[in-house]
Amino acid sequence: MRVLGLMSGTSADGIDVALARVTGKGKKLRAQLEDFCTVPYPSEVRRAVLRIANAGPNRILSVAEISQLNFVLGELAADAIQRACRRFSVSLKRIDLIGSHGQTVYHRGRRGRFLGRQAASTLQLGEAAVIAERTGRPVVANFRPRDMAAGGQGAPLVPFVDYLLYRHPRRGRAALNIGGIANVTLIPPLASPGEVLAFDTGPGNMVVDGVIERATGGRQKFDRAGSLAARGRPREKVLRRLLRHPYFRRHPPKSAGREQFGGKYVDKVMSLLKGASTADKARTATELTVLSIRDAFDRFVPERMGIREVILGGGGVRNKFLVQRLCEVLPALNFIPAGELGVDEKAKEAFAFAVLAYQTWNGEPGALPSATGARHKVVLGCIVPGGKNQLSTA
Amino acid sequence: MRVLGLMSGTSADGIDVALARVTGKGKKLRAQLEDFCTVPYPSEVRRAVLRIANAGPNRILSVAEISQLNFVLGELAADAIQRACRRFSVSLKRIDLIGSHGQTVYHRGRRGRFLGRQAASTLQLGEAAVIAERTGRPVVANFRPRDMAAGGQGAPLVPFVDYLLYRHPRRGRAALNIGGIANVTLIPPLASPGEVLAFDTGPGNMVVDGVIERATGGRQKFDRAGSLAARGRPREKVLRRLLRHPYFRRHPPKSAGREQFGGKYVDKVMSLLKGASTADKARTATELTVLSIRDAFDRFVPERMGIREVILGGGGVRNKFLVQRLCEVLPALNFIPAGELGVDEKAKEAFAFAVLAYQTWNGEPGALPSATGARHKVVLGCIVPGGKNQLSTA
Repeated sequence: MRVLGLMSGTSADGIDVALARVTGKGKKLRAQLEDFCTVPYPSEVRRAVLRIANAGPNRILSVAEISQLNFVLGELAADAIQRACRRFSVSLKRIDLIGSHGQTVYHRGRRGRFLGRQAASTLQLGEAAVIAERTGRPVVANFRPRDMAAGGQGAPLVPFVDYLLYRHPRRGRAALNIGGIANVTLIPPLASPGEVLAFDTGPGNMVVDGVIERATGGRQKFDRAGSLAARGRPREKVLRRLLRHPYFRRHPPKSAGREQFGGKYVDKVMSLLKGASTADKARTATELTVLSIRDAFDRFVPERMGIREVILGGGGVRNKFLVQRLCEVLPALNFIPAGELGVDEKAKEAFAFAVLAYQTWNGEPGALPSATGARHKVVLGCIVPGGKNQLSTA
Repeated sequence: MRVLGLMSGTSADGIDVALARVTGKGKKLRAQLEDFCTVPYPSEVRRAVLRIANAGPNRILSVAEISQLNFVLGELAADAIQRACRRFSVSLKRIDLIGSHGQTVYHRGRRGRFLGRQAASTLQLGEAAVIAERTGRPVVANFRPRDMAAGGQGAPLVPFVDYLLYRHPRRGRAALNIGGIANVTLIPPLASPGEVLAFDTGPGNMVVDGVIERATGGRQKFDRAGSLAARGRPREKVLRRLLRHPYFRRHPPKSAGREQFGGKYVDKVMSLLKGASTADKARTATELTVLSIRDAFDRFVPERMGIREVILGGGGVRNKFLVQRLCEVLPALNFIPAGELGVDEKAKEAFAFAVLAYQTWNGEPGALPSATGARHKVVLGCIVPGGKNQLSTA
């Protein structure tokens, strides 16, 4: 099957589109990335998404805004598919299935009291019915709620795909993905799905980007190649304090997001770093990511897993200084860019939702209970039937 | 197939559950209501739903609230299914499929500008993944968006089921459903789906209930059997003014909701009726429903449709005075309670979503473009796979 995977990350830059070819089932499942591109959001859409998502639980907005944004993001996803197909030189008619993650605007992995019930919840926008109607192809969407209904955190989901891609007969491997949040998947040699462990280690680029943006008054959105951090020195006292965040000590399974490391947290970091140079601020924020990842390996990766290789993916890989620091603080591990094993790091998540859509389409489970904390394996998401192609694609 | 249909109306009282047996396909499709019950919402849930739904577009709330409510309503729907199955004395294992409409918290049938795009949208809460996980049965949900993606208003959807139930070889029939909003489906003799016309006429019980609740300071929620209205006299001048609402003149297809006739509109009606007795207020609001329905028949039902019978459904049927007035103002039509033709009026909408789920499950369209205004027929909704039964049903 030729499957498109769509992902819109927490940074709300746009829509990643991966073209995958997937065949087989179970242990014989094979998935290959054929092409990839990113279609940016219009700036007003990005602002609207961030305003809704990047906020505490008491943010004020209107239900109209959420409902309308859901449909507009569906239209933008359909546009992105059309543009991607043109760029990939593949006709939409030759696409068998679409997997669309959507744009997360809320995620609460752990249950809390609400209206007299215990509830965790998650909310992704980007109406799949709009995508199916515009493209005429069946769409699998809403991947996270089912795992949460089964007691899981609905995240991380990519580990299942890491497992499929990276399991090795003799080598223990960790897949480390550095997006806004950093997550790791631990795959012992010859692992069965139940032996895989995965969790979010904490901030990836989220805090670094936030600090850079504020320290430069918005002139820079991120630390290109880590050049700022490379020139700075970490504020040790601040760093020690930041590393005492209770999230870092919590045992997996666990997942993190803007709730822990979003705007409010960046405010706190900025106030602790008051008076420091921009380079020192960048360095301290970068060290927070680096050392929280190191601590996660020290605390939660048992020796018996035999992890020797780390496959490195996500946008954070472009931060050369961050990668260099990771190699320094975890000297026993061999770091390999994800691209070298077949899937470019940028394309990883979008590719994952193509594979997960394929699983759902075939009635196969798509989450690792050992990663999400669910009570059992579940088939993820919902299926929107295809139909006549309503796009005027060439 | 044995299919459960779930509906939560705009009044947010609770969840209607219908048990239907559906067989065949196309012209041979046969659907029968086997049982029905209503499971009320806890009062705090009802309040939360009304607070979110019964509000203008600038209502302030949090995305957390919407996300959490979505999951809690999913849990409540699963509970309602469990209770209904016990009451119906049918094991959940013998249910083949569930159709869940969910709780509408926003509906904008006509397109408007949003973030630089034209968008209509709708938002139903009651996470289907939770229902599927708790019951182990496949769930069809999110019925409205696909029709809207195809240019329709996403409503009304019940007309398709009216058409299946009530088409007659010689008689032209209208199915009039009086819920919060009143809607009518016009089915000429021997009609094909394309010849059916359906639209919302305007307020059903929504304005009457709102007026009664305010006029009695909350002691009464509705006019039982219409006894208050029966004792009152209509304020003719106010009535004429209310009947000039532009909605009544707009040509079908059209759909109405709280946006037009909700709390704000009731405020206006109350201020126009200032000084009138409670009975006169009740009577005037009741006449608004009655005369707006009469006007709709006069304006939009062409003689060539040969409509002679009106099949009357919805909670408004219990308002005897309202029904009596309808018979008086439309003397040429023969009024028949929906219950007499096989489906109890209370059960109608829930039953409809069982039939529509069956259609989707079989890859068949479930909306009438002539009713919704869509450019073409579409398969409605999305399908959440079943799984192991996770309920501890007896």
